[in-house]
Amino acid sequence: MAVRMELTRIVDCDLNDHHWIHLSETHGERTFPIVIGRAEAQIINRRLLEEIPFRPMTHQLLWNIAEALGGTFEDVVITDLREHTYYAVVRIRCGDQLHAIDCRPSDGVAIAAHARPMLPIYVEESVLQAVVGS
Amino acid sequence: MAVRMELTRIVDCDLNDHHWIHLSETHGERTFPIVIGRAEAQIINRRLLEEIPFRPMTHQLLWNIAEALGGTFEDVVITDLREHTYYAVVRIRCGDQLHAIDCRPSDGVAIAAHARPMLPIYVEESVLQAVVGS
Repeated sequence: MAVRMELTRIVDCDLNDHHWIHLSETHGERTFPIVIGRAEAQIINRRLLEEIPFRPMTHQLLWNIAEALGGTFEDVVITDLREHTYYAVVRIRCGDQLHAIDCRPSDGVAIAAHARPMLPIYVEESVLQAVVGS
Repeated sequence: MAVRMELTRIVDCDLNDHHWIHLSETHGERTFPIVIGRAEAQIINRRLLEEIPFRPMTHQLLWNIAEALGGTFEDVVITDLREHTYYAVVRIRCGDQLHAIDCRPSDGVAIAAHARPMLPIYVEESVLQAVVGS
């Protein structure tokens, strides 16, 4: 079962080059951080601050390509945690097909942050239990 | 008219945080640099060194999404230079349609570098004349 989450915090710490996002249960109390890259932290942050870049950044390009090919991003699901690495898929609807494409959670959240409202983010219950318990 | 170019040099200088690529005419002598971001320089460099990342990086995700939606990247064209900024499109074939999607040249070249052989890169003659003459 996948649990609906909200992006509740972005920590973009230039000082020690540590960056992470916090996901928190929409209808619950559980929350956990995911370490992400500097570039992704900045992209997500800028997007949430409604900073529109002068030229299309990579995740905007990703949206534009998917739309041109008839795809609509539906949601992002963090599906697994193995050896301290999170696995995710971004799901794209195209006609009557739903494609689940393997991605890093940071790319998934950056894609989600491009939508208004933000795309839904889910985490599998098994992953939540592994990181914060039930 | 678009002129076929080759990616001939990537300068990824961590020391002063300046990064750029050099494009050189395939059937001629003209060459010019384009300043790009640190992340893009590293992505292009790693890709050319055949370093396969543990998880799909953003431009690999871009390929995977386009392929899932039935698109095939065809080439990259640098179309314009206005106020020191280069403009480009990445062209994607889908069925009998050819979509030209606005992108930064760095994203275009990073996409091109994912293909084996590399996707063709073109620069409009007017752009080449503006930066290096005829």
